[in-house]
Amino acid sequence: MTIRRDTLRWNGWGRLGESIGLGRAREEAILDELGRRLGRKLLRGAEPCALADVRLPPPKLEAALLERLRAACGDDGVGTSRFERARFALGKSLPDLLRLRRGEIDAAPDVVVHPADEGAVAAVLRIAGEGRLAVVPCGGGTSVVGGVEARPGPGHAGVIVLDTTRLDRLLAVDAIAGTATFQAGIDGPALEAALARHGRTLGHYPQSFEHSTLGGWIATRSSGQQSNGYGAIEDMVVAVRLVTPEGVVRTLPVPRSAAGPDLRQLALGSEGALGVIVEATLRTARLPASRIERGMLFRSFADGVAAVRELVQAGLPVSLVRLSDESETELFELLRRKPGSRTGRTLDPGAVVLGAAARLGYAPGRRTTLLYGVEAASAREASFAAWRVRRVLRRHGGLPLGRAPGRSWRRDRFRTPYLRDWLLDHGVAVDTLETALPWSLLEGGRDAILLALRRALASHAGGGLAMAHLSHSYPDGASLYFTLLYPLDETDAVAQWRAIKRAASDAVVAAGGTISHHHGVGVDHAPWLEGEKGRLGLAALRAVKRVLDPAGLMNPGKLL
Amino acid sequence: MTIRRDTLRWNGWGRLGESIGLGRAREEAILDELGRRLGRKLLRGAEPCALADVRLPPPKLEAALLERLRAACGDDGVGTSRFERARFALGKSLPDLLRLRRGEIDAAPDVVVHPADEGAVAAVLRIAGEGRLAVVPCGGGTSVVGGVEARPGPGHAGVIVLDTTRLDRLLAVDAIAGTATFQAGIDGPALEAALARHGRTLGHYPQSFEHSTLGGWIATRSSGQQSNGYGAIEDMVVAVRLVTPEGVVRTLPVPRSAAGPDLRQLALGSEGALGVIVEATLRTARLPASRIERGMLFRSFADGVAAVRELVQAGLPVSLVRLSDESETELFELLRRKPGSRTGRTLDPGAVVLGAAARLGYAPGRRTTLLYGVEAASAREASFAAWRVRRVLRRHGGLPLGRAPGRSWRRDRFRTPYLRDWLLDHGVAVDTLETALPWSLLEGGRDAILLALRRALASHAGGGLAMAHLSHSYPDGASLYFTLLYPLDETDAVAQWRAIKRAASDAVVAAGGTISHHHGVGVDHAPWLEGEKGRLGLAALRAVKRVLDPAGLMNPGKLL
Repeated sequence: MTIRRDTLRWNGWGRLGESIGLGRAREEAILDELGRRLGRKLLRGAEPCALADVRLPPPKLEAALLERLRAACGDDGVGTSRFERARFALGKSLPDLLRLRRGEIDAAPDVVVHPADEGAVAAVLRIAGEGRLAVVPCGGGTSVVGGVEARPGPGHAGVIVLDTTRLDRLLAVDAIAGTATFQAGIDGPALEAALARHGRTLGHYPQSFEHSTLGGWIATRSSGQQSNGYGAIEDMVVAVRLVTPEGVVRTLPVPRSAAGPDLRQLALGSEGALGVIVEATLRTARLPASRIERGMLFRSFADGVAAVRELVQAGLPVSLVRLSDESETELFELLRRKPGSRTGRTLDPGAVVLGAAARLGYAPGRRTTLLYGVEAASAREASFAAWRVRRVLRRHGGLPLGRAPGRSWRRDRFRTPYLRDWLLDHGVAVDTLETALPWSLLEGGRDAILLALRRALASHAGGGLAMAHLSHSYPDGASLYFTLLYPLDETDAVAQWRAIKRAASDAVVAAGGTISHHHGVGVDHAPWLEGEKGRLGLAALRAVKRVLDPAGLMNPGKLL
Repeated sequence: MTIRRDTLRWNGWGRLGESIGLGRAREEAILDELGRRLGRKLLRGAEPCALADVRLPPPKLEAALLERLRAACGDDGVGTSRFERARFALGKSLPDLLRLRRGEIDAAPDVVVHPADEGAVAAVLRIAGEGRLAVVPCGGGTSVVGGVEARPGPGHAGVIVLDTTRLDRLLAVDAIAGTATFQAGIDGPALEAALARHGRTLGHYPQSFEHSTLGGWIATRSSGQQSNGYGAIEDMVVAVRLVTPEGVVRTLPVPRSAAGPDLRQLALGSEGALGVIVEATLRTARLPASRIERGMLFRSFADGVAAVRELVQAGLPVSLVRLSDESETELFELLRRKPGSRTGRTLDPGAVVLGAAARLGYAPGRRTTLLYGVEAASAREASFAAWRVRRVLRRHGGLPLGRAPGRSWRRDRFRTPYLRDWLLDHGVAVDTLETALPWSLLEGGRDAILLALRRALASHAGGGLAMAHLSHSYPDGASLYFTLLYPLDETDAVAQWRAIKRAASDAVVAAGGTISHHHGVGVDHAPWLEGEKGRLGLAALRAVKRVLDPAGLMNPGKLL
C-alpha cells in the first residue's frame, strides 16, 4: 500500500504531525487580523471528537460474506476496525470534516477491502452483487464533493469501501511512445518517482497530489496546477481499464481513433459509479531540465485577465498560470506579512516592495498577483520562453515581483489544505468551489458569483470573506476558483454550509459556468447536474450505468 | 444551400467538369507506367451508367407522409427525383462508386429532405417515427466507409435522407473567447470564408474539405491535414447540439468541465446513429500571417519516422507533417515526372534533383519524402519555427527539397480524390484505409499491413500496388494511411473489394491499430468495432442509442 493510512489524519487533511506551520507569532497575527475582519475574536475551540468517541452505525455484514471477502482479498485485505470504518466513511469536503470532527458519522462502511489485483476487484464486485452491497471505490479519499461518502442506496444491505491503493504498480514503460501503464491505485508521489527513474514526468499536480491516486484523478476528471503545460488528466490518458459488475471495459492504446464515440470519456468523470478504474496508460513528458516560476503584480483583475488571455491565446509555452484577484491578493499579503511589521517593529522586505508598488499605482485592495511558470529542456530555452511570457505580461502593466512568489508557491503548493484544519480549530470555516467560463463571461461571472457568495455569507454567517483566483486557462476561457472564510455556526454547521453551498452553486450556474471544473460532482453537486447535462444527456449516462452496473451497486448517490 | 448538389457528380468525386487534370501527355505516361506495374495495358473502359439508366428500387412512401414532410421542410425542401434519390443513395467509398458506375443501386432513399432549421429537423424525426421510416443524416455525403448508405433496417417502411446543408449559418462569434457557433450543415469553404471575415480560421482541412460539412466532421471524428497545428475536430468542439428522436442533447459552452463524463464525446463519432448534429461552438485560431511548407528527402522510412517522432515529442510548432513511405514516394515521383523525361527527351528539374540525391545515398525505392509546414503570426516567427523544425529533420539525415513539394501539395491537396475516378475509367481501383498506432508499433505495423495488403492483392487482383504515408502525428504515435491500386475484376468488383478490405482490416487489428483513425466506422468497419470497443463498451454505446433513439430510426446499420 503506497498510501500508509495509519500516518494520515482520519478527520482532517494530510499527515499526522504536519500542519500549516506558520509559527506562533504569525499565527497569532493572522488570527488577530482575520478576527477583526470577521467581527469576532478567534479562539481555539474544543478539541475534535476522538476516534474512540465517534458514533458509528453498527456494522451489519454477515460473517459468511466477510469470509468470502477475505478469501478474495486476503486476511490483511479486509478491515472492519473502528479506524478503518471512520477513515473511509467520508472524504475531505468541509461538511465531511465538520461531521468527523463532531464524531457524528451517520453512514460508514460495514467493511473496507484492499484488493491487490484486478481479480480481487472483480471478486469483490461479484460478492457485493450477491449480497446486495453497495461498493464505494476509494483511492486517496480526498474528494471535496462527497464523492467517497460510504452511504448505502435504497435496497442495499450494506456498504463495502473498495480501497484501490494496493493496486500501485508501474506495469510498463514504452520509451519510444513515451507512455507508461500504471495500476490505478498508485498515488501522486509514487507515480512521479517511478516515472522519474525513466527520466519522465506526468506533470499532474492537483492540490491533493500527495494523497490522491491516478484512478481518483481519472474518475473525477482532475486537473493539476501545471495544466497549462501538461494538460488535464483527459489529455494524458491514452487507454483505461475499468472493472464493472458486468465485466471489463478497456480501450485500445492508440494515439487517436475515429471508431465511434470515445469510451475513455466514460471512465473519465465516472466517479466510481460505473466501475473501478484499475489501470491506465498515460502520455508522459520528459522531465524538464529547467524551470522558472515568478510573480507579477497587476493594477487590477481586468489587467491580469487580459494578460493571461493573451498568453494562452497566443499559445505561449507557459506551464503554470494563476491570477489571484484583489481579495485573494490582499489575504495572501496578510498571510505572508512578517509578524510585527504592521506596527513597524520589524522590517519586512515584502512589505517594502508592496509599498513601492502602491506608489506606482498598484494600489492595495485593487492590485492582483499573477504567478506564472515555464519549463523547458534547457536553461536557455526556459529563459527564452520566460522572456516571451514576460514581454506579454509587461504589456498589460505587469510589475515583476521576482523569485519570492514562485519559491513560496512551490514550497507551499500542497500545504494550503492544512490551513483549513487550523482555522476550523479556531471556529472559522474554509470552503472552496470552482467553475470554468468562457473569457467573455469570466469577469462578469466572477463579480456575480462573489456578490452571491458575500450575500450568502452575510445571511448565513453574519459575514465572511470571499475571494477568487483564475487558474487552468485555455484559449477559450479559464477556471475560477473561489475561497470562502466564515465564522462557523456551531449549532448546525452542516446546515449553514448547505445554505451557502446552494447559493454558490446557483450563482455559478446563473453565470453560465460549469458546476465543476475539476472537483467533480459527488453528492454535493448532484442537484445541479441535470441542469448542466440536460434531461436527455443525463438519461444517456444513466443508461450506460444500467448496462455496466445493472444492480446499481457502484457508489450510490454519486454523479448519476 | 451552400452545397449546390447540381454542380457535383452523383457517381464520382467532386465538381462536374473538374478532374485530376494532369494533361494528356502525362496521363498517357502514367497509364503506361502503371500498366507495366500492374501487368496489363490500361485502356479507357465503358462509360459509367447514365443517371437515366440507373436501376433504383421504386419509392414506396405514402403521399400523406410526403405531404407532412413538405409541411415541415417546404415544397422545395422535399425531393423525390431520380437525381436526388441516386445522389443520396450512397457515399464516396470505392464500393459505392463501383455500384453507382454500374447503375446498380439496391437501396435508395424514398425521399430526401432539406430542413432549414432545427424545428424542421425535429419535425422530420417525428414524422419518421410515426411512419417507421429510417433517417440517414447526410452532410456533404463524402463518407468513404458507407456511413451515408440509405438502406432501411429491419422493420423500416422506408428511408428518409436528411440533408443538413441548408443549416449553413454562422450563428455567433465570440471575439473574446475566440469561438464561433455554426449550424452544422455548413461546408468547409463557407465555414472558413465566414471565419476569415473575422480574421480567424478553424484550420480543419480533411481531404473532403471542399464538399464536407461541420456536422459530418463531428459525426465521424474527422481529422484534417493540418491536425498537427490545429488538432482534430474533437479538439475544436467546445459545445454541440444534437437533435434526437427523443429531444435535444446539448452541452454547456465552457472551456472544460469535470461534471461527469463528457457528453460532447457522444456526438463526436456518433455517425448519425444517435441523432442529427445541428449546431456546434468551435474554438478558432487567428488566421496565420505567414506559413512555410517544404519537402525533405530521407534515406529510409525509419529515418523519416524517427525525425517526425522527435519533432512531435519535442513539441515543435509544426502545423503539417506527412511522410510518404518508399512506395508512395516512388509513385509520386512517377506522377510528377515530366512526360518524356524518362527517355531523356525533356529536361525535368525534379528528376535532376532526385538524380543528385540518389548519388548522396537517397536511393530510389528506399528514399522517403516528408512534407512539413509551419504557420505563425509573423514571417519572423514562421522562419524561426521552420529553422527549429529543419534543425531536427537535418539531424535525421533530411535533405531539403525546397519549395516545390509544398507548393504542389497546397495546389493539389483536395484534388487527389479525382485521380480515383480517372483510374476507375481505366479499369484500376484505388482504395485507401488508415489506422493509428503507438510509435513503438508503427514501423512493424506498417510492414505487416503492407505485407497483408500485397498478399490480398495477389490473391484477389492478380497483383497491385500498396503504399503508405504517415500523417497526423502525436507525442505517443501517429496515423498510417494506406493506398491500394489494383486492376478491377469487372465480373464482381464489389466482391473483390470486400475480400481485400477484409484482409486489410484484419491486418490492421492484428497490428494493434484502431480500425479507423479518421474515416469512421460506417458499414464497412462495423464488423471490427466490437473487437476494438469490447463487448461491454459496445453494449454501453447501444444503451445510449436506445435512450436517444428507442425506435432505432437513426442511420440503421451504421456504427451501432
